[in-house]
Amino acid sequence: MRTIALVTDFGARDPYVAAMKGVLVSRTAAPLHDLTHDLEPYDILGAAWFLKTVVPYWPAGTIFVCVVDPGVGTARKIIALEQDGKVFLAPDNGLLTFVWSGVRAHCVENESLFLPNGSTTFHGRDRFAPIAAALANGLPLAEVGPAVDRILLLPYEPPVYGDKVVRGTIVAIDRFGNAITDIERARVPFDAFSLRAGDTVIDRVEQSYGGAAAGAFLIVGSTGCIEVSVANASAAERLQLQRLERVELWRSDGGSLHV
Amino acid sequence: MRTIALVTDFGARDPYVAAMKGVLVSRTAAPLHDLTHDLEPYDILGAAWFLKTVVPYWPAGTIFVCVVDPGVGTARKIIALEQDGKVFLAPDNGLLTFVWSGVRAHCVENESLFLPNGSTTFHGRDRFAPIAAALANGLPLAEVGPAVDRILLLPYEPPVYGDKVVRGTIVAIDRFGNAITDIERARVPFDAFSLRAGDTVIDRVEQSYGGAAAGAFLIVGSTGCIEVSVANASAAERLQLQRLERVELWRSDGGSLHV
Amino acid sequence: MRTIALVTDFGARDPYVAAMKGVLVSRTAAPLHDLTHDLEPYDILGAAWFLKTVVPYWPAGTIFVCVVDPGVGTARKIIALEQDGKVFLAPDNGLLTFVWSGVRAHCVENESLFLPNGSTTFHGRDRFAPIAAALANGLPLAEVGPAVDRILLLPYEPPVYGDKVVRGTIVAIDRFGNAITDIERARVPFDAFSLRAGDTVIDRVEQSYGGAAAGAFLIVGSTGCIEVSVANASAAERLQLQRLERVELWRSDGGSLHV
Repeated sequence: MRTIALVTDFGARDPYVAAMKGVLVSRTAAPLHDLTHDLEPYDILGAAWFLKTVVPYWPAGTIFVCVVDPGVGTARKIIALEQDGKVFLAPDNGLLTFVWSGVRAHCVENESLFLPNGSTTFHGRDRFAPIAAALANGLPLAEVGPAVDRILLLPYEPPVYGDKVVRGTIVAIDRFGNAITDIERARVPFDAFSLRAGDTVIDRVEQSYGGAAAGAFLIVGSTGCIEVSVANASAAERLQLQRLERVELWRSDGGSLHV
Repeated sequence: MRTIALVTDFGARDPYVAAMKGVLVSRTAAPLHDLTHDLEPYDILGAAWFLKTVVPYWPAGTIFVCVVDPGVGTARKIIALEQDGKVFLAPDNGLLTFVWSGVRAHCVENESLFLPNGSTTFHGRDRFAPIAAALANGLPLAEVGPAVDRILLLPYEPPVYGDKVVRGTIVAIDRFGNAITDIERARVPFDAFSLRAGDTVIDRVEQSYGGAAAGAFLIVGSTGCIEVSVANASAAERLQLQRLERVELWRSDGGSLHV
Repeated sequence: MRTIALVTDFGARDPYVAAMKGVLVSRTAAPLHDLTHDLEPYDILGAAWFLKTVVPYWPAGTIFVCVVDPGVGTARKIIALEQDGKVFLAPDNGLLTFVWSGVRAHCVENESLFLPNGSTTFHGRDRFAPIAAALANGLPLAEVGPAVDRILLLPYEPPVYGDKVVRGTIVAIDRFGNAITDIERARVPFDAFSLRAGDTVIDRVEQSYGGAAAGAFLIVGSTGCIEVSVANASAAERLQLQRLERVELWRSDGGSLHV
């Protein structure tokens, strides 16, 4: 049985999610799950990172319907691809940058699958939803449209893991104010750290948020990446950190972060 | 199989939605879907427009449980009606203004269907939920209470489609800041436009949000109605537009909006 | 059939809820319900009151997965208990203060049930979700770990119901600005009231929000407790009321609140 997982920036107060769900429920009995509808509007990088974090925990058979789509109605393509038994449906704007492993994608062009008389402004309802329902009902992926050679990837500079210095980027600020970097602890070749984020150098490390004394510290977060946190407060606010800010980690006498 | 679709202004942080769902899950196996719980508190017009936009996309068999209910506990009635195979349960306060097509409504009065010892302040949990569950389980609509001759409709002035001038109203501001009018493009009898919204005259038209150059433009939105947008920004903020503001569209040398 | 009910402070925009749901959907076919993910971050008292309000409306067979967990990764325990056929899974930090009736709890220690290679920072995904899925699939509760003698309860001072004066506490401010006390109307031994909340004395009582004239009034809310409200406005803002503020109710010539 297929499961449909919805990831959008539509918010909860407008009728967009409800209209999409109506199309889905009208056309398939596959269960629907809201993953989020509260991604920052138009924030493709944030959505791409969200998917990277979440997708590994969903089972084969999941159809991810990903609609963060500032280019809706323009010449941008909609792509569909299947990877490890999971199907992804997304605008070809970089949303799948961090989950795509090179499998062949298809360009969604089969208009007979779209809602009739659809709009140019709401493909979530008029194209993504009916296509997702059809796939959930067993439509072979190749019937959505022709294969494409490549998909669009975001210009993203991955961390550089040097022997003494690692450079990375803050890729997310979560609700609790943790500043999450893309530096994977397991790939850092040293065990005692200092990290510079903004104007602050931090060399205290902790194993848990709750056990931490006051002030800023480093922690290995739930994605395996290094985060900057402040006990009982927002690190992003306290230290004036923003997403996409670069950070630098170096071997020091600081604390040790368990892998 | 019946499906239950929830539309409220209860928000996500309080226990109200969770209590309603508990009553529903206790009494029926029909699937539940959250359409929205984030309507503006007490905003009956906004909720009515939400329903107009969303209802057509849901299948026959859906039971819409609509609770934006500032009059809860007063003499206002709760009504139930079935139309095109879809059931609506709502306070009789105008919520169904834009979806009701004249079918007979019933007044929910059968107290044996209510939760025992219910409150005067939370009919969503004590009346709407058990009634919806009963209807989902097959209760004939007429058993909720006696038929009523009329339901309350909001005082709403529909657009006037003149040969040279069309006058309408901004009926919604969405999350992206688009100002959505009630003027249906297909009913405008001319093809080149200017629109006055607030102090601004706009005569540029676009087919998509994403392809638009900087500044304000008109676009036919996903409901088929004309919207005012600003590329990569909130039109409502930039142009100081508010809901219920009147707009005027006239034949001009401006751009052409496809039907 | 078991039902899983999720109660967290994870918010809707981060990947935490979506990752938890992925683990659950991967491991069980039991239906999932979002009760809330918008509890105030780290607000254990608020979450505990939320559960008190909501739990009675859910059926036996419900598994409440409660994750407001500022101590994640510290020595705090995770507890599981079954009461009236409902299962609760929560950090042992007081979350269950108002729903626990003295039944035996188990300490979740059986690591073979956890996600492999789990984090120290996200037990919602790595421990709560797989345990909940296992329980939904029929695992006997005792297999999660050893019984414990006691669970942690919040230091909470219940109302004092005197013959002439009742003292209680504002335990919640809802989305509509109602200030909800913990004083149960049915236990107040007199019928005409005045209430002091902050600097304001209120002796008007109403049966419904919607029928009320301007200004502040008292009302018996949907939990059976006395609330302070202001017609068409936020009582909390108008009267500068905050959660945990003490209130005093005394016999007076004020209005009468129906039980």
